[in-house]
Amino acid sequence: MNPEVAVIMGSTSDWETMKFACQSLDELAINYEKRVISAHRTPDLMFDFSEKARTRGVKVIIAGAGGAAHLPGMVAAKTTLPVIGVPVQSSTLNGLDSLLSIVQMPGGIPVATTAIGKAGATNAGLLAAQMLSMYDKNIALRLEKKRQQMTETVLESSEQLG
Amino acid sequence: MNPEVAVIMGSTSDWETMKFACQSLDELAINYEKRVISAHRTPDLMFDFSEKARTRGVKVIIAGAGGAAHLPGMVAAKTTLPVIGVPVQSSTLNGLDSLLSIVQMPGGIPVATTAIGKAGATNAGLLAAQMLSMYDKNIALRLEKKRQQMTETVLESSEQLG
Amino acid sequence: MNPEVAVIMGSTSDWETMKFACQSLDELAINYEKRVISAHRTPDLMFDFSEKARTRGVKVIIAGAGGAAHLPGMVAAKTTLPVIGVPVQSSTLNGLDSLLSIVQMPGGIPVATTAIGKAGATNAGLLAAQMLSMYDKNIALRLEKKRQQMTETVLESSEQLG
Amino acid sequence: MNPEVAVIMGSTSDWETMKFACQSLDELAINYEKRVISAHRTPDLMFDFSEKARTRGVKVIIAGAGGAAHLPGMVAAKTTLPVIGVPVQSSTLNGLDSLLSIVQMPGGIPVATTAIGKAGATNAGLLAAQMLSMYDKNIALRLEKKRQQMTETVLESSEQLG
Amino acid sequence: MNPEVAVIMGSTSDWETMKFACQSLDELAINYEKRVISAHRTPDLMFDFSEKARTRGVKVIIAGAGGAAHLPGMVAAKTTLPVIGVPVQSSTLNGLDSLLSIVQMPGGIPVATTAIGKAGATNAGLLAAQMLSMYDKNIALRLEKKRQQMTETVLESSEQLG
Amino acid sequence: MNPEVAVIMGSTSDWETMKFACQSLDELAINYEKRVISAHRTPDLMFDFSEKARTRGVKVIIAGAGGAAHLPGMVAAKTTLPVIGVPVQSSTLNGLDSLLSIVQMPGGIPVATTAIGKAGATNAGLLAAQMLSMYDKNIALRLEKKRQQMTETVLESSEQLG
Amino acid sequence: MNPEVAVIMGSTSDWETMKFACQSLDELAINYEKRVISAHRTPDLMFDFSEKARTRGVKVIIAGAGGAAHLPGMVAAKTTLPVIGVPVQSSTLNGLDSLLSIVQMPGGIPVATTAIGKAGATNAGLLAAQMLSMYDKNIALRLEKKRQQMTETVLESSEQLG
Amino acid sequence: MNPEVAVIMGSTSDWETMKFACQSLDELAINYEKRVISAHRTPDLMFDFSEKARTRGVKVIIAGAGGAAHLPGMVAAKTTLPVIGVPVQSSTLNGLDSLLSIVQMPGGIPVATTAIGKAGATNAGLLAAQMLSMYDKNIALRLEKKRQQMTETVLESSEQLG
Repeated sequence: MNPEVAVIMGSTSDWETMKFACQSLDELAINYEKRVISAHRTPDLMFDFSEKARTRGVKVIIAGAGGAAHLPGMVAAKTTLPVIGVPVQSSTLNGLDSLLSIVQMPGGIPVATTAIGKAGATNAGLLAAQMLSMYDKNIALRLEKKRQQMTETVLESSEQLG
Repeated sequence: MNPEVAVIMGSTSDWETMKFACQSLDELAINYEKRVISAHRTPDLMFDFSEKARTRGVKVIIAGAGGAAHLPGMVAAKTTLPVIGVPVQSSTLNGLDSLLSIVQMPGGIPVATTAIGKAGATNAGLLAAQMLSMYDKNIALRLEKKRQQMTETVLESSEQLG
Repeated sequence: MNPEVAVIMGSTSDWETMKFACQSLDELAINYEKRVISAHRTPDLMFDFSEKARTRGVKVIIAGAGGAAHLPGMVAAKTTLPVIGVPVQSSTLNGLDSLLSIVQMPGGIPVATTAIGKAGATNAGLLAAQMLSMYDKNIALRLEKKRQQMTETVLESSEQLG
Repeated sequence: MNPEVAVIMGSTSDWETMKFACQSLDELAINYEKRVISAHRTPDLMFDFSEKARTRGVKVIIAGAGGAAHLPGMVAAKTTLPVIGVPVQSSTLNGLDSLLSIVQMPGGIPVATTAIGKAGATNAGLLAAQMLSMYDKNIALRLEKKRQQMTETVLESSEQLG
Repeated sequence: MNPEVAVIMGSTSDWETMKFACQSLDELAINYEKRVISAHRTPDLMFDFSEKARTRGVKVIIAGAGGAAHLPGMVAAKTTLPVIGVPVQSSTLNGLDSLLSIVQMPGGIPVATTAIGKAGATNAGLLAAQMLSMYDKNIALRLEKKRQQMTETVLESSEQLG
Repeated sequence: MNPEVAVIMGSTSDWETMKFACQSLDELAINYEKRVISAHRTPDLMFDFSEKARTRGVKVIIAGAGGAAHLPGMVAAKTTLPVIGVPVQSSTLNGLDSLLSIVQMPGGIPVATTAIGKAGATNAGLLAAQMLSMYDKNIALRLEKKRQQMTETVLESSEQLG
Repeated sequence: MNPEVAVIMGSTSDWETMKFACQSLDELAINYEKRVISAHRTPDLMFDFSEKARTRGVKVIIAGAGGAAHLPGMVAAKTTLPVIGVPVQSSTLNGLDSLLSIVQMPGGIPVATTAIGKAGATNAGLLAAQMLSMYDKNIALRLEKKRQQMTETVLESSEQLG
Repeated sequence: MNPEVAVIMGSTSDWETMKFACQSLDELAINYEKRVISAHRTPDLMFDFSEKARTRGVKVIIAGAGGAAHLPGMVAAKTTLPVIGVPVQSSTLNGLDSLLSIVQMPGGIPVATTAIGKAGATNAGLLAAQMLSMYDKNIALRLEKKRQQMTETVLESSEQLG
């Protein structure tokens, strides 16, 4: 079976961030593929990938990019599948450029944007799972369980203070 | 049948922005409910709404808020359904505060954030439809058709220049 | 006797910042409790804590959080006790996101916001003491004494230059 | 009896913002005085006012200022009463300068900062009341009642949408 | 003869800004074409236009866009002709988003970015002419003449003060 | 033969950034000169260099500077050759000051601005080559080849993930 | 006698701001000249003016500019007289670009920067007078008197509140 | 003879920055005093120092501060001598807070602001010297000589590239 989630990123250097998206998907036992696709250096591959994603069975695309960060928005322009954009922290402007380039999309072409960096990548994986959970009760249950674990971890952590 | 999309906002003044989310849903013939729910002024209602959303049949929640803009993130903390956050343009900081308050969620609780203001609201409606289209071919077809119309509109508009 | 000040924070990683609030309270011999309470991962605990704080004898709540930083504002939405919010420095945007998420509260639900990071945490403890000093002459005297010590430290420090 | 709250501002032009602090205090039947005191144009008056505030019976000081906005911080340097700072929206930088000048106080001298502009002024009045409510049950009751009214207003407003 | 400069923009609403690029070209008697091409709504047209530009005889492309503003960067990804990017002032963030989305391109794919709004559009036309002037003495002479006129206008304007 | 590209920078400390512009030019076998010219410390040299550049055979000027970063704009004021400005990352404001000082030129005097830091310097060299390629087929071919190599590098890199 | 203060600005449109510098000088009976000198459109005039200023008897130069705002810094590079820079509010970025371009000068060439817009222009005139007052007791007395008037105006204004 | 320049700073930790102001003064053989004076921790000393500065023979005051950075503006409020403000780089917001708190003074009370950090401190010393040079030819000559040395250093540095 083809993976339902595709995790793509503009360069291998984005992997340090985007691996947290994959980690979320792994923890929820969701099948995914991961690839380097660059908006600026492999534009044709990007278009080809985006056009065929739905027919290949992909249901959600997670795209991480930094700086001008055109990848999520351009993928979104070539598919009607939901696209999650992860702003990778840039070396010069702390990722504010990545965030604005990804989130400020014009009316008509949405990108579901998450936080800058590691937290955003972690959440991109969870968000993809939440979308799948709309029609998949098993994933919904796993998400609930993960939430409870998070809650318990916090409850136990108060004793570690000071 | 219960609506699959819930559009909520922190105050009636957010309607001028959030009506564009509803307009997108109307155009795609997607059933939705719309309500004023304030994170700060009706916190108990917010929690009650969020906890029951999935069992009521809601599949996606769109939440608009401005300034400190806690609504999308707090709803997301109380449900595992996908939550789309729309930063409403604030009167003092152009919506940069709304955007950062919504998008910079910690790892564990994602909010799918769209652009500030009207474009973001329009896209929130489309994004909800795209999520539903993962399992609903009719909505997928309607989204494709809408895209084609957008393309045609642009192609025709060149002649209007100058 | 129950503590009059509660110091809460979103995660144990905030302790590196929030311990300076506790240090201020220690120096002024003010009794306090400290706990990890997360807006997003323990929302029910947060509401329960906030609702019961006044009847438990708490007079001031100090809440530290980073990023989207919903904790101070949501606690404030569930109590009419004064809530002091400390923006913890975030890894991506230097704490500007934390600051705006905490300070830009809508009319009706105030959060008394202090500076980003260590200085803000130190001051949160002092501010709580200042509030208590409104009706407690001993604390007022201790605050005056601490101020004088600060003044003397500065006066003596000129000789260390160069 | 002397007023327990003093509302001060840097110039008469700040009144358009600061009147909302007074409105909050009026609604809660809290006695207050209001004055124009400028950090830069009446520095001696500012120091004199701040030094004598506690002995005059003032319990909380609300100070509004814009731009470099030194008033709240300098008053705080001359008293150990709690000082609430309201960043007035500036004409050039939207109040971001006012906010940072007020909130980024060094360790030792806290200013309880609220939001930029009208919402922040409204909340400054409420915050002062919340501090007084720590020892005054009547004010605590009035604050609770006001909260309930706010909640009811929101609950009723959903029907006005669209 | 085919025009040597192509002026493209994301939507007809950008014309209010981009007409100043055309005005610069008109003043210097440089032949150009102008078209609406949207990165997000007509991605295939954008790629087709970019791929064929050099063989059609285009020498410089001027692309204006606002918000996420992917047009200049994506055109640049599909041609090795120089691409000039004009950040159109956005309604929410004053064009800072447009500027960062256009200028922060990754190494490998340059976009020659000009100022936000009218000044940037005016300069995009002049910059295209300056590029052409590298090999066209007539254009170089016209540019020199225009500079002298600008200088004279300033020299004469001192008398209008006060 | 005189070099067609001049790479200038405000101080030797900018070389760590600007060497990437030279590296791009080296890779494309384009002849260039490199010099330290400071707008503020050698203003007369700057003017002399700029006035004579065209007659010396220079076709494109690349100027890197940080902070107030007046070099690119002032060179542009003294020549009608295209000037490419590279914002060098400043120590205090991450290069946002450099970027705005370079890009926000008034109508009449364009500077072709690239990204902050290393990526921008790399692209400045490529952009100069793209301008030369308008009339030089060999450079156009080399640019095409370099693009293909970049594409291949990305295509091969997917296997390195994880 | 030649004027001791020169007020220059980049274009006639800056006069709306810079007239407040002249107003301050008029109120203090300080002789001045005012001229339009553009860094980018009259660079040679700017250099000539700056080089000769000291020998012409000018003691302080006030320079106003917006956007990239190179005028104050370049004048400062060509004279060792004190140069006061006034950031004129720009149409796109609220004058933040003007401020950073003027204030972030490299070590070696100072510009005495004032606030953005009208307040900064008013203060530029006062600051020039304060510099002259270092050696001119009459101006010192006039400055003292003006301060007292400002103080009195504030003291009287409290009665106008509400 | 009393020193003509006073260099003050908010805390000993500012010395790492402010020593560069002293270094500039040393290089130009200008006599100065240096002291720690805190706006917030020694407000009375600050007022006393400012009031007496002119009669003590001080001609220029250099004041460095970080964060809310009220020192330069409050000293300026208590003297009509020129006050130079140096924004010390803050730990959380890169000194943007320091800069805005110092530079955005209201009309009536100027502060001559320099760049953030080391460059600004270096320039504060030079700016003080430039003010003194208005009436002291020896200092004017030393400033000219220093400029020439700077120019020569740049001219020689080109050979160090690469």
